[in-house]
Amino acid sequence: MSDALTASALDAVLANVDANLDAALDRLFATLRLKSISTDPAYAAETRACAEWHAADLREIGFDASVRDTPGHPMVVGHQREGDGPSLLFYGHYDVQPVDPLELWDADPFDPKIVTRPDGSKKLVGRGTADDKGQLLTFVEACRAWKAVTGKLPLPVTVLLEGEEESGGVNLPPFLAANKDELAADIALICDTNMWDADTPAITTSLRGLCGEEIVIHAADRDLHSGFYGSAATNPNHVLARIIADLRDADGGITLPGFYDGVPELPDALREGWAKLGFSEAAFLGEVGLSVPAGEKGRSVLEMTWSRPTCEVNGMGGGYQGAGFKTVIPAQAMAKISFRLVFDQDPHKVRKAFREHVRARLPADCTVEFHEHGSGTAVAFDTSGPAFQKTRGALSDEWGKEAAFIGGGGSIPVTTLIKNTFGVPVVMVGFGLTDDAIHSPNEKYELRSFHKGIRSWARILAALA
Amino acid sequence: MSDALTASALDAVLANVDANLDAALDRLFATLRLKSISTDPAYAAETRACAEWHAADLREIGFDASVRDTPGHPMVVGHQREGDGPSLLFYGHYDVQPVDPLELWDADPFDPKIVTRPDGSKKLVGRGTADDKGQLLTFVEACRAWKAVTGKLPLPVTVLLEGEEESGGVNLPPFLAANKDELAADIALICDTNMWDADTPAITTSLRGLCGEEIVIHAADRDLHSGFYGSAATNPNHVLARIIADLRDADGGITLPGFYDGVPELPDALREGWAKLGFSEAAFLGEVGLSVPAGEKGRSVLEMTWSRPTCEVNGMGGGYQGAGFKTVIPAQAMAKISFRLVFDQDPHKVRKAFREHVRARLPADCTVEFHEHGSGTAVAFDTSGPAFQKTRGALSDEWGKEAAFIGGGGSIPVTTLIKNTFGVPVVMVGFGLTDDAIHSPNEKYELRSFHKGIRSWARILAALA
Repeated sequence: MSDALTASALDAVLANVDANLDAALDRLFATLRLKSISTDPAYAAETRACAEWHAADLREIGFDASVRDTPGHPMVVGHQREGDGPSLLFYGHYDVQPVDPLELWDADPFDPKIVTRPDGSKKLVGRGTADDKGQLLTFVEACRAWKAVTGKLPLPVTVLLEGEEESGGVNLPPFLAANKDELAADIALICDTNMWDADTPAITTSLRGLCGEEIVIHAADRDLHSGFYGSAATNPNHVLARIIADLRDADGGITLPGFYDGVPELPDALREGWAKLGFSEAAFLGEVGLSVPAGEKGRSVLEMTWSRPTCEVNGMGGGYQGAGFKTVIPAQAMAKISFRLVFDQDPHKVRKAFREHVRARLPADCTVEFHEHGSGTAVAFDTSGPAFQKTRGALSDEWGKEAAFIGGGGSIPVTTLIKNTFGVPVVMVGFGLTDDAIHSPNEKYELRSFHKGIRSWARILAALA
Repeated sequence: MSDALTASALDAVLANVDANLDAALDRLFATLRLKSISTDPAYAAETRACAEWHAADLREIGFDASVRDTPGHPMVVGHQREGDGPSLLFYGHYDVQPVDPLELWDADPFDPKIVTRPDGSKKLVGRGTADDKGQLLTFVEACRAWKAVTGKLPLPVTVLLEGEEESGGVNLPPFLAANKDELAADIALICDTNMWDADTPAITTSLRGLCGEEIVIHAADRDLHSGFYGSAATNPNHVLARIIADLRDADGGITLPGFYDGVPELPDALREGWAKLGFSEAAFLGEVGLSVPAGEKGRSVLEMTWSRPTCEVNGMGGGYQGAGFKTVIPAQAMAKISFRLVFDQDPHKVRKAFREHVRARLPADCTVEFHEHGSGTAVAFDTSGPAFQKTRGALSDEWGKEAAFIGGGGSIPVTTLIKNTFGVPVVMVGFGLTDDAIHSPNEKYELRSFHKGIRSWARILAALA
């Protein structure tokens, strides 16, 4: 397509999006009503029904789409490969989180609603509105508009929808490996992330990796009375406290030998870009009742949460934690510890160093059990390539504000998986906001995110073509 | 009484004890059947019935005994004051621990039984057999035998039985204060402790004090996702681990400033006496699956558990402790910490030093709640006085082995209370064994402990007269 033709076609496509927003919402609400809670076997049939709904929805706009069995919940795969230009692989997930505690919801989580605020803004409320049905349909509806206006997509597209993103996703790696040729594309797109803020679109260009470990320290073979055994018997609570305390030095750095291997200082360009975001540490922390950044001294909150590795004790416990007092020396104590990793940190090396750290602090009378809870390397993309630059331009056009390249603190394993399987850039664009309450009661998605999200993808499809 | 007369009377009394053992067991079983679980309000009426039973039992052998109301469960007080010689105050408690988990009992805890082992030895099984109904009746039955044989007790005796020893005992201090003149005596006796081993009687001559503290560290006003807030937000688990780890130095000493003030080195005589006990650290620790003494380097297990102060984290917890993994930074973390105190350590000073230790390690973004769980000073008696020497002689006569002067690791608040209220020696003699499973399912008391316990008290009454 020539630039002029594309521009005129895009205008028509955007008008089509605007004109058909209500119908798009009807479709979104249809899938939101399906209880595709992947972690709960009781919803297996409804999860499959949701997959069938999405396959049918894709077929309706010309995709060669089908439900593909796995040992768990099925995948949905659809192709529409005519046309030139780089081919796209779009990833989203149709499964949702459980809804408990149900009593904290203001309405039925599976009876989605449009709620109008006093200022006139509207939000879509219900499980899956933001994570990820609302987000994934922004892409599908953009395809629909292109098809309606031009009869075809601007470039070849494959859609892959997962049904186990919220429940471990163990069947995705073998599925990608087994269908590598069928799913191969030049650029991958994922819609499962947030905007920078309500007015500033964002492309997430790096994600941290994860190394999760659980340790259980065992001492005596039973709980002991501290009046009789105090001092004489090893107390695993003390052993655990020493292990945890020794993980950080006085400046907040992690003490594991070799931990920072493969962690370069942030490139100046990125550091300057982040500085320009106008991020307020005070506001970020103040929102949750805090005011003083913890962690590594001399590093900003954005730097720490986007580009530095962390170590957090997510849970620990030993002995009597109920009401009152019980003078017990417990037989065991446990902790769950996660390391977020960046750049080239090797999760297996980190795990090994952590286990050595634990063993070195284990008294002769203690034994330790280690349980692995996930390993993932960090992922980061070179944002100078055309996929990122063109997507950024399209987003900036739609929102009237330059799209930010941001880092992600959490881990999205599929990103690394796609990058490693296909060796292509993975462009993460999403329209969620931090207050969407995903995984929580009263999950919502802004109507504006849904509407302008469709328009954004319509523009991105044109830009990448 | 002349020595000769006493000796002949004592022989008759001991013979009377032997002849009436079955009747004594019937009486013991009668009170064991009464569910005097003081901590559970559902058993209030039965707890009172148990008090009434003991008052009636004391009246039967000539005590001027009655049930005395308190704001909680009643006391039983009985006097029998004719005669010369030093006056005695005997303390025991008629309430018992709850019985759950009931499914771990081999039989109804309140249907006491005599169980004969393959080697012919017999044990009394049921809640309260050892703690403390069986123990307190050893004294009462000794009085009964003296009355039966000589028509009177060898010296004036007051019996005080508490009904809230297992549930806080908050009404005992005001009761002692309000009835100080009535209860005053020259020597106090308590039967609520153990023998050194199954063949060696013991007098517990020192008990450690206690300072119990609970701390709750608060950080953010809600649980946070560690992927987003890791490093940036203060993690109370880390704060708590640092606080606990810093409580001990590399040699196992407690680091609180001034903690060891008022803690002298053990007198040589006591150290030598303890060395002669033939205590096996390997056996003591091996019994619970341990082998290496923890605590202060260079000090023996007996020294540490009997005469050195300790600090033990009895419970701690923060964040996610369930199955699997949850990447949360918890809003709070807690710990329950007990200090066992010796000699002249001041529990209030220790508490203050501990709180300063906590506050000094509290990041700017954290707050701490302190909850006090008990304060008690240590107590130790000069064993060279006649009460201890005569009691030791009587016990040694009965068991054919010199009675041991031992320290107690736990705290028995009533001991300090009686010592401070009346300024008299408190002689703690008991016939429990470490495997009696007090506070646990299948509590038992050796029939031999009951039988020879009665005989022991019969001898002690004669010796002290």
